[in-house]
Parts: sequence; C-alpha cells; structure tokens
Amino acid sequence: MASSTEFNNIDEILGKLSLDDQAKIKGVLYGKGCRIIELPGEVRDVAERAGMEIAGYGFPGKKEQVRPPRVVRVGAFQNKLPMATTAPIAEQRSALFQMAKVAIAVASKAEVNVFCFQEAWNMPFAFCTREKEPWCEYAESAEEGPTTKFLQTLAKQHNMVIISPILERDEIHGDVLWNTAVVIDNHGDVLGKHRKNHIPRVGDFNESAYYMEGNTGHPVFQTEFGKIAINICYGRHHPLNWLAFGLNGAEIVFNPSATVGELSEHLWGIEARNAAIANGYFSVAVNRVGTETFPHPFTSGDGGEPHTDFGNFYGSSYVTAPNGVRTPGLSRLRNGLLVTELDLNLCRQVRDHWGIQLTQRLDLYASTLSEATKLDFVPQVIRK
Amino acid sequence: MASSTEFNNIDEILGKLSLDDQAKIKGVLYGKGCRIIELPGEVRDVAERAGMEIAGYGFPGKKEQVRPPRVVRVGAFQNKLPMATTAPIAEQRSALFQMAKVAIAVASKAEVNVFCFQEAWNMPFAFCTREKEPWCEYAESAEEGPTTKFLQTLAKQHNMVIISPILERDEIHGDVLWNTAVVIDNHGDVLGKHRKNHIPRVGDFNESAYYMEGNTGHPVFQTEFGKIAINICYGRHHPLNWLAFGLNGAEIVFNPSATVGELSEHLWGIEARNAAIANGYFSVAVNRVGTETFPHPFTSGDGGEPHTDFGNFYGSSYVTAPNGVRTPGLSRLRNGLLVTELDLNLCRQVRDHWGIQLTQRLDLYASTLSEATKLDFVPQVIRK
Repeated sequence: MASSTEFNNIDEILGKLSLDDQAKIKGVLYGKGCRIIELPGEVRDVAERAGMEIAGYGFPGKKEQVRPPRVVRVGAFQNKLPMATTAPIAEQRSALFQMAKVAIAVASKAEVNVFCFQEAWNMPFAFCTREKEPWCEYAESAEEGPTTKFLQTLAKQHNMVIISPILERDEIHGDVLWNTAVVIDNHGDVLGKHRKNHIPRVGDFNESAYYMEGNTGHPVFQTEFGKIAINICYGRHHPLNWLAFGLNGAEIVFNPSATVGELSEHLWGIEARNAAIANGYFSVAVNRVGTETFPHPFTSGDGGEPHTDFGNFYGSSYVTAPNGVRTPGLSRLRNGLLVTELDLNLCRQVRDHWGIQLTQRLDLYASTLSEATKLDFVPQVIRK
Repeated sequence: MASSTEFNNIDEILGKLSLDDQAKIKGVLYGKGCRIIELPGEVRDVAERAGMEIAGYGFPGKKEQVRPPRVVRVGAFQNKLPMATTAPIAEQRSALFQMAKVAIAVASKAEVNVFCFQEAWNMPFAFCTREKEPWCEYAESAEEGPTTKFLQTLAKQHNMVIISPILERDEIHGDVLWNTAVVIDNHGDVLGKHRKNHIPRVGDFNESAYYMEGNTGHPVFQTEFGKIAINICYGRHHPLNWLAFGLNGAEIVFNPSATVGELSEHLWGIEARNAAIANGYFSVAVNRVGTETFPHPFTSGDGGEPHTDFGNFYGSSYVTAPNGVRTPGLSRLRNGLLVTELDLNLCRQVRDHWGIQLTQRLDLYASTLSEATKLDFVPQVIRK
C-alpha cells in the first residue's frame, strides 16, 4: 500500500500554504487555542538520538477565583516494532523494553505526569494472522507479568503514571486472554486494569479469535494527576463507550490504538475528537506506526490474495481538549512522543459554557436503550 | 467578527496546493469514494441567476446480488435572509417563500427527491435577542400554517419530500412554541413532525426562553425515498440523539442548523460526521449563511458590550456517508444547494463490514444509563 506511506503528515503539506491561509484553515480544522510549548533542548537532543519525533502543545484553562489551575502533562508514545516479528519472543520483548525505557526517560525530562503506550505495545500486532502460536505466548498477567514489573520500576523512578496496554492472560479464570490496559501509578503500584469493551471483526482485525468483550465496565482511575480512563482501540467507534467513561467522571480518556490507513485513516481525526466535545473531557488518541510483516501469509476475508502484512499503521497520535480544539498529529511514519500540557479545569469550564451535560436528557435515553434491547422492540417509524 | 468572513471555504484554500498534495490531504481529511456528479448546464444557469452556489456529489454503493441499488438524491439548501430583519413580517415571509420556490425548482431540475432547509428557515434567527415581540409572530401551526401550506403545493408539484424546520405554535396545548421540523411527503401531505430534543443555553443561543425540550421522541419517517429523520441543530452535540434515530432505523439523518463561527466552526466537520460513522447512516448537515442584524442591542452573557448581531453563520453544509467519507462543504458565505446522490444500500453494507452495530453491547449501556440517572449514582472510580 505504497500510497499511504508517501508523506509524513498533513500538517507538513499544510505548511506549504501561506501563513495566512494556514491560520484560516487550521482555525476551521483544528480550532483555536492550542499553544506550542517549548521543550528543553536537552529533551529534543535525547529524542533525536533515539530516532523519535517530539512535539509539545498546551491547552491553558481560564483563571478561576476559587480553584487553582490543575495542570498535568501527558505523554502519548507511538512506535514501530524495533525487531522483526520472527525474532525470538524474549529478544523482541527485550528490545521493546529498551525502547520504552528511553521513551519514558525522554518523557520524564519533558515533565510528563501520565504516559500512555499504543495498544498491545509489548508485542507484534499479530491478530491478523489468526494464529495462536507463538503469539499467545506474549500474554501475561496484568498484575504480575514481566511488562508490569518492568514498568513499575520506571513509574516509581520517574514519579509517573503509566498506562500499559497489553495482551493479558487470566490464569485464575481458565487461562483466557483479554485485551487489557494496566494502570500503574506514580508510586509503582498497579492501580487497576481495564479490559477492552468492544472487539472488532473487520478485515484483518480478527481479534475476536483471541479475546472476548471486556468485563471490567468503565472504570475511571483516580490518580494524583487527575481522573483517567482508557477506551481501547475499536471502542472509539462506540459513542456509548466514550460516554460511560464520562459518566464515571473521567477528565482524560486515552485511546491506545492499532489501526491502518486504508481502513480508518479518514475516521481517525473524527471519533476521539467527537468524544472530547460530547463528553467534556480531554481525549488522547495514540496509534501504532510502521508495517509489521508476519511469517505466514493470511487472507483478509475480502476475496483478495494472501499477504503477510496489515498495511501501514499511520501513527498520527493527537490530543483534543474538551472544547474540541486539537493538536496537530504526530508523524504518520515515525516513532514519536506527543507531550501535552492540560489544565483539567477546562473540563468543567467547557461543561458550564456549552451545557451539553446539562441538556443531555439521560433519563430519556436510558428508557430508549432499554426498549431497543427488547426482542419485540418496535422502532418509532411514522408511515402514511 | 471580520476574521470569520474573510474566505469562501477551506476547499478553495486547499485548491492552492498541487493536485498530488490535494489528493493526499483530502484522503486523510475527507476519505476516498465521494464522486462529483455532473449537473445539467441548465441547472447551473438557473442557480447562477438566483445567486446560488450549486454542487453535486455521489456516494455509490457496491453492487449486490439480491437487492437492486436504492439511489436517492438529497438537496440541502443554505441561505441568507433576503430582507432586513426589520421589514414587516409579511414581506419577509413573502421574500423567503419566493427564494424557496426558486431553490426547490433548481433542486427539482437536479432531480432531488428529498429537500431540506436550514433551521427556522422561514424567519430571522432572532432568539439571540430574547425578545418575544415581534418574533413569536412567526410561529405557526406545523400542520396548517402558511409555510406548510406553501410547501405542500411545491412538494406535490415536484414529487419531492420537503423537510421544513420552523417555529411551531401549538394552539391546542396552551399556545406554546416548539422548534419543529415538518416532513411533507412527495404527494404534498404532512407525514409528521419532530420537535427539537435538546435546547441550547449557550452564549447568544438563548433559545430556552422560547421553547422546551421536544416531546416527539426520535421519529423516523418512512418516505418513498428511504427512512429519514431530523436531528435539529444543537442536538448534533448529543451522540445519544443521533443514536436513537439510528435505533429507529433511519437511513438519512438531516441536521438543519443555525450556528456561528466563533462558537462552533471547528466542531462543524466533526459531529454530524461522527454520527454517520457510529450509526451507519448518511448525515446531512445544513447551516445558515450570513449575518443577521437586529434592531435592539443585546448582550451575550459574557460581560461583553451589547451588539446587534450573532456573528456570521458560516454555511459549510456537507454530507457524510455511513463509511465516514464526506463531501467538501458549501461556501461559508453564499447561498447554496448541495445535491448528493446516495445509494441507501451503503448503510447495510457498511454495517456488515465494520460491525459497529453488531458489537455495540446495547444491554450494557441501557443498564449504565439507568444507573447514571439515579440520584444516588456512585460512579465507577478506582482509588488506591
């Protein structure tokens, strides 16, 4: 799929326009009020040496009389696999851990408080193969697995909350697998986990062969840096999933993803952003980068030829504020860390201003949804 | 607010880029698969003489074995007021009717089957003033008012379904007002009406002084040209409102709006489009154009100086297919008619492909929403 890897991102293309035209078009596309924050030269140097793009933006809130600002820095990390998918699992994991260590050190220098990886960050995204071996060997305990243990040390060292989306193996309940995000707090303790609520059955995303719909509800994690939640990948297509995290009080909702160009790139800028607007919170959309090639050809359920890759994960991680203003995206091609400084007070400020929660009529919809789930549901259709 | 009226639309600015860059950027921003449809020269001539932009796009579906294509043409009309807001009501209404007659004739020549006006199309958008006089005089019966009677003749003449968003006066129930869309079928009969479900209380949009939240549920109107529904203006900020029309089987959901630049322009391309993606239907977003000036200064609840206008209604009407691919927008400045040819089969095709409805877990959310409406609701928060 050569066409999808031809350019770094649309912001670079927009950069060819006059500054005046850029301001007009970005006002419409991204909104106004997202500021560039300067990161220390040292941070940029370390990132460059690690082959990572780094970008910093801020969403300042208004000054209030009673509440002081509640400013937190979020780091969203997107990355390619550092090794071939055919390398031994232990070597791949070790290379991923090394890369993660560098990325977290960079984030720490950039004063990040909450760090989020992409979906299933500690393994190849092998679900397209429908093969159980060797990929299921990557699955591990959310509470005591090697990835969690590795990150606990770093979280404590850097005083940083880390969101670690992994393939979980639940040994206590029949050895089943889950698509899970582990939340490790800034003291290195596992605060909890969330299991992906909506599992795709589309094209190469044959994930339903590996895990079922999550059974952890819509938890919001109260951290020292605000209330956070995680809507894993395909859950971003479900407005109700985003809504439920909002109802439980989330101020930042992360969307660690793994998604490819031909399928979803034109949707990527829409869904997480709509969620921020509708729910009055920050959304942080993180996507994988690069093309992952697997040893055995597989088909995509579209009558096409067998092939050995998914296509290109297009990165383009971005953050949206509750007022719908967004950052530019990271590269479509390169590893990168997106650092954003968020004043969490903006959530309530926007809710007060727009009144979307005030006017949401939740009781009406609770009733509508209850009706719609009944087997004898009769849709409200007006016929002549 | 001079800045918001400086340019016609972002597509014109993108037109300054090379064709190759345009293709790349539009692939990411709008998706691929929206085709230009050629409209007859005669149609273009009539539109030009009437001072209207006209544009045509099509969203073809895939060929199926069992179902023939179900192709319909939709017309979305955006317009400025043809007279000053201070002119006598009868004169303003007459001028609006004359303009509508021309627009519907143009749409008819373009073979439009379903035509939709902007919100409260037959009057100035005077709610910012909070004055009851003389604006409430525009309110009329949905079933027997002069606007409905006027359009019934045109609907029958042109074999066209017409969606007419008006200020409704309900004489039977205490003379109260509603923000209502009337659906007139292609035989000139009133098929039914829908009352706006969510009423804004933001900035100059002080509409809650005039009407309450609608009591008509989420009706879907079965027409000869597909199942249609209307999500009026501010309802577009509510994913649940969009969802409920989808649950009732809508294939096209219209969003007749009146919204201004400083408040919402960066949200305009997001919300109706997200709704089409999440619910597997076409969405048609229609916005007013121009600046409407009122006789008495009013304040906006933001500590600013009194003023006599809302700012600029930025038009930019557009259509999104169920696969998230969208048309360019109409002008931000001019009257215009957006003609789109939709294969309604695309709705089910996209639902089968993406599986969003399949994976929606409605029972889970029916329960979540019921819990969240309780006064003693305890959010799911995980604390250390």
